[in-house]
Amino acid sequence: MIVTMKPDAQLPDIELVIERALQHGCRVHRSQGDERILLGILAPAGCLPSIDVFEALPCVDRVVRISTPYKLVSREHQPEGSVIHFASAQFGGEQFPIIAGPCSVESEAQIFETAAFLKSLGVPLLRGGAFKPRTSPYEFQGLGEEALRLLRRAGSAQGLGVVTEVMSEQDLPMIVEYADMLQIGSRNMQNFALLKAVGATNKPVLLKRGLSATIQEFLLAAEYIASQGNLHIVLCERGIRTFDNSTRNTCDLGGVSLLKELTHLPVVVDPSHATGRRSLVAPLSRAAAAVGADGIMVEVHPMPEEALSDGQQSLSFGAFADLHQQLAPYVNLRALQLRLSPTTDAAVPAIVASSK
Amino acid sequence: MIVTMKPDAQLPDIELVIERALQHGCRVHRSQGDERILLGILAPAGCLPSIDVFEALPCVDRVVRISTPYKLVSREHQPEGSVIHFASAQFGGEQFPIIAGPCSVESEAQIFETAAFLKSLGVPLLRGGAFKPRTSPYEFQGLGEEALRLLRRAGSAQGLGVVTEVMSEQDLPMIVEYADMLQIGSRNMQNFALLKAVGATNKPVLLKRGLSATIQEFLLAAEYIASQGNLHIVLCERGIRTFDNSTRNTCDLGGVSLLKELTHLPVVVDPSHATGRRSLVAPLSRAAAAVGADGIMVEVHPMPEEALSDGQQSLSFGAFADLHQQLAPYVNLRALQLRLSPTTDAAVPAIVASSK
Amino acid sequence: MIVTMKPDAQLPDIELVIERALQHGCRVHRSQGDERILLGILAPAGCLPSIDVFEALPCVDRVVRISTPYKLVSREHQPEGSVIHFASAQFGGEQFPIIAGPCSVESEAQIFETAAFLKSLGVPLLRGGAFKPRTSPYEFQGLGEEALRLLRRAGSAQGLGVVTEVMSEQDLPMIVEYADMLQIGSRNMQNFALLKAVGATNKPVLLKRGLSATIQEFLLAAEYIASQGNLHIVLCERGIRTFDNSTRNTCDLGGVSLLKELTHLPVVVDPSHATGRRSLVAPLSRAAAAVGADGIMVEVHPMPEEALSDGQQSLSFGAFADLHQQLAPYVNLRALQLRLSPTTDAAVPAIVASSK
Amino acid sequence: MIVTMKPDAQLPDIELVIERALQHGCRVHRSQGDERILLGILAPAGCLPSIDVFEALPCVDRVVRISTPYKLVSREHQPEGSVIHFASAQFGGEQFPIIAGPCSVESEAQIFETAAFLKSLGVPLLRGGAFKPRTSPYEFQGLGEEALRLLRRAGSAQGLGVVTEVMSEQDLPMIVEYADMLQIGSRNMQNFALLKAVGATNKPVLLKRGLSATIQEFLLAAEYIASQGNLHIVLCERGIRTFDNSTRNTCDLGGVSLLKELTHLPVVVDPSHATGRRSLVAPLSRAAAAVGADGIMVEVHPMPEEALSDGQQSLSFGAFADLHQQLAPYVNLRALQLRLSPTTDAAVPAIVASSK
Repeated sequence: MIVTMKPDAQLPDIELVIERALQHGCRVHRSQGDERILLGILAPAGCLPSIDVFEALPCVDRVVRISTPYKLVSREHQPEGSVIHFASAQFGGEQFPIIAGPCSVESEAQIFETAAFLKSLGVPLLRGGAFKPRTSPYEFQGLGEEALRLLRRAGSAQGLGVVTEVMSEQDLPMIVEYADMLQIGSRNMQNFALLKAVGATNKPVLLKRGLSATIQEFLLAAEYIASQGNLHIVLCERGIRTFDNSTRNTCDLGGVSLLKELTHLPVVVDPSHATGRRSLVAPLSRAAAAVGADGIMVEVHPMPEEALSDGQQSLSFGAFADLHQQLAPYVNLRALQLRLSPTTDAAVPAIVASSK
Repeated sequence: MIVTMKPDAQLPDIELVIERALQHGCRVHRSQGDERILLGILAPAGCLPSIDVFEALPCVDRVVRISTPYKLVSREHQPEGSVIHFASAQFGGEQFPIIAGPCSVESEAQIFETAAFLKSLGVPLLRGGAFKPRTSPYEFQGLGEEALRLLRRAGSAQGLGVVTEVMSEQDLPMIVEYADMLQIGSRNMQNFALLKAVGATNKPVLLKRGLSATIQEFLLAAEYIASQGNLHIVLCERGIRTFDNSTRNTCDLGGVSLLKELTHLPVVVDPSHATGRRSLVAPLSRAAAAVGADGIMVEVHPMPEEALSDGQQSLSFGAFADLHQQLAPYVNLRALQLRLSPTTDAAVPAIVASSK
Repeated sequence: MIVTMKPDAQLPDIELVIERALQHGCRVHRSQGDERILLGILAPAGCLPSIDVFEALPCVDRVVRISTPYKLVSREHQPEGSVIHFASAQFGGEQFPIIAGPCSVESEAQIFETAAFLKSLGVPLLRGGAFKPRTSPYEFQGLGEEALRLLRRAGSAQGLGVVTEVMSEQDLPMIVEYADMLQIGSRNMQNFALLKAVGATNKPVLLKRGLSATIQEFLLAAEYIASQGNLHIVLCERGIRTFDNSTRNTCDLGGVSLLKELTHLPVVVDPSHATGRRSLVAPLSRAAAAVGADGIMVEVHPMPEEALSDGQQSLSFGAFADLHQQLAPYVNLRALQLRLSPTTDAAVPAIVASSK
Repeated sequence: MIVTMKPDAQLPDIELVIERALQHGCRVHRSQGDERILLGILAPAGCLPSIDVFEALPCVDRVVRISTPYKLVSREHQPEGSVIHFASAQFGGEQFPIIAGPCSVESEAQIFETAAFLKSLGVPLLRGGAFKPRTSPYEFQGLGEEALRLLRRAGSAQGLGVVTEVMSEQDLPMIVEYADMLQIGSRNMQNFALLKAVGATNKPVLLKRGLSATIQEFLLAAEYIASQGNLHIVLCERGIRTFDNSTRNTCDLGGVSLLKELTHLPVVVDPSHATGRRSLVAPLSRAAAAVGADGIMVEVHPMPEEALSDGQQSLSFGAFADLHQQLAPYVNLRALQLRLSPTTDAAVPAIVASSK
């Protein structure tokens, strides 16, 4: 941490910073510039004081943090990439898994048809919302536990793992009974109570980036989960909010590539939410594979024009099959497996997650 | 709602839109432009279908909503402004209340000293965090229930109402026992489970705008609370996230003025979080009064340089007294009351909230 | 400047940074942290090398600049505020001048009527566009030199100074003949050729902040002008572009307050462009006065509903008179003069600019 | 265009809108909702009035434009993609051309070495800045005409086309003598005088997206050039400015895909400026190829660590050769040509541009 003093800082101001640093067990290096004093604060491993400790002192102009504030999820902490595998899917390993399914579980027919279709293409994971975070209280809020039951049955019938969103600590025990992977949505990326709660389970977590979360905040949200003991985390870039509303959000593929440098966790891309336009889902899926993502999540619906939510970005079965075909050569270039081999998908009865 | 068809839309595409509209009880007006068909969807009062219903249909280019999606909190619904009064404070009435206090409750001495100081200036409401939403899991997370106890005792000792943040549905029953007003922080503005939970209490709610929430999303978050029966809501602009990090956030005072047009709810400004810089708190407080806000919330601490969080934006007692003095003539121009008169502050023993 | 090396930097990497610093006449302080080396680069006064010099070196992780990159416009360079006075207006002095007028000069009647109206209220400066930066090539582009002639005649007839936008170096010599103050619009804030060209004149410049310019970039744009010898610069906050399009732009009044700390140049606010809504112009004008701005610029038109551009944010004469009346007590609180006294407005025949 | 009236609009307000529409030769459809009147304004082909005409009228709540405001550059106007070919490069045709070279031309050795290296890999176009738009006036501003001479000689020596930035109308006649393609930088994307000036030449133009330009504004900037008669335009996505500064800018590949739908012009990606980090250039180049871009522009320098500008994002020859190799299979998947065939590169003596 570098503390820059204001030009008019006096000796007592500087001594106050030094004293505070020493109280926290740090060493201090002092540099005298022509106009200002700089103090380098060197903390013992693992116990850097908060930046606030110094920013609040009088005559301190600025404090710059040098080391990363996240630890468990960082590449410095674990250089080799984590492989999160559960059901028959592997993130960060030899597969390029697709998580697919409707925005919301709407009916038995809808979710069973979708599961059967996905199975036919070798897609390993079925998604479907039971509790929906809708901007307006007057929009469809999901079918709740009934949706969880349907999702679980549809997944099990086809040997697919199931992924669903958790919006509330209070629903968590129930959802854990049904789901193979817990999704934390964008709007809850900094719902710290919820992060801690899923961190205390042993379920794989799909953590979506907040609408306006920096890469560092995204990693710190993952660190919240990790700090509770659960390192089975897959990060999901789903578009960030920018000034431009030509697309629903702006898909930050540069951020995906940067994440792969900074963390050992797998990173997937959700091109459906990232763009909000059906026609852009396939191009961005190809780009996600090319940039180095570890998988994608796509909305698919038997009849998108009848969907109760997000129909405009959902693919029909035909459009999804086309995307799948477009994607295959890109996944091949990376020597990954897009289609689940028949031997693996039946072999894993229980949900197991592990990181290398 | 206006549905614009793509230029190549055919008769069956148009009929599909019309059929869907009729299913939802709407009437349809059809306009033929030179290149495109437009369909005006007119819903019966109070049951406009979701925009998704039409966006998902084939050959639909765009859907534009005409009426506002929030109802209970809108000025159209209630033209006269709401007055939220509880403890001895009034938002939207004849006062310009200040909510002040430390970011976190840290000790008995700290919060009691602060309460006594605020009382001496006629400030009606004491804030203090018990559960803190910190970006990193390794930063100070608040003292929990012990902080609530101290806050309550300090408030009661001086006749001040107390305001504190709720981060979790599970903590809510406990917090309701101690607090006069429940704060929903920026990061939880779209934690819909939490919004519904506070909406089911009868406590006044201070709802902070999300870091990247549009004005409409902000009002819909308030609508979530209102839809559960609790209309004792005060909105708080606390800075939005933009490209510019010269200040911590960008204080959107134009948005405050727009909110006053769109909603009958009171709106306050938090210049401490909006700027993150001590020196900008007083100028923005004056501007908030001038633009038409209904109050402010300010961080104050007996020793900002010792604060466990947010010290760099906290005012010392001296700086706060100075702000208070600067603010007075601006509040006077609006014929509002800044300093609580001695008669009112003792007179209200119980917590009462009502809207005109 | 602080250079942080990557954790795996070796001695030769470090020596390369040091050598580069010495080549630029700098001294170097080296600090050894537990994980990384930090190098403080201390430049002799006034010749700090570009940040690029170090960022490009291998094993350099990050370079943080400590001192400000702008000099002539900074408060450190000149602690007392500049007063820019010309025609009968004073920015940064004892007045709170309003620049008012239509978006575009459209006709003799329009601009003469407006000038007479403004004069009647004691407004010192008349604005009007002759060359208009329109997003589409098919929209009204301004009347060109004919507009300049009308503007000048209208201004002179009433003893008002005139302000107009320069969009092109090639038009500059012509515009200099007519205008008292040259406006650089948002879209040209980083048109460096144009900045240098106006910097080579002796006319006061009204520099508008770019749509997505940071405070530092804004000050560096002013520094471009100043570096050519022209320090008669007034900065104008006119709203920045953010994710929220409830208002046309987001008016950054916190940025105005910060600018007043960082630079000695006067700063004004343009609430018309900042919000794009007539009804928000008066509230933000009051807030601009309260936050410490040195004046405002407002669009006014005899018949806003007939305006060829920006009608939706233009005030009618009645609405402007109302704004003027609302503003007066706020300007009084700062002991500034809103209405030009009759003696000064006729007394200044020539255009003179000077900074204290 | 749809005009929504305010709920309290009266008959005369509505008649005023209708009258205005008729004055502009439009027809009007009127729809009566439960709360509001909507007026559909239908213009004769090619002469839609500005949105301002209606927004400025009293009791108008909102005006929504239905048709696109750009014409010449739209896919509706020209469904088949344009092919821009000049020197030996083809954009939008059967090649995937790379524009490569240093940020600034610094010396004869530097630019000749780079040209020879690029030629060896079959790269068709050499870039190099002669006039540099630097944020600070104190940073290296380019070598000017000397740089142009060197760039031209280096290009011609190797049979490469040359691309350089124009920052000023006044430099344009000189630059036209040297360059094969004129670059308009981000900061000048809405320098309308400059756009018109390059539109009046017959040189191919590389138009970079502004830091905060929407897709529509980007296309309208291209329309400015096209409206002067020059349709030899290649669009360049180079990252937009967002809240996140983990990367210098955010590369909007979803926007690239959307542009390919909306316009017939070729679109390239500049991953160097989009990310500002050397390590992210190759991943984003692959993603650009996968998403459907028509080429890329990359900064390469013989000794990035000695570069006078942008060294931190410039690739060394080794790193560029590696990128080239990584890119090849992705370009192959699209059946495009990455490496210039030896026969074409010598065959084109003159600079010719044409669109299909």
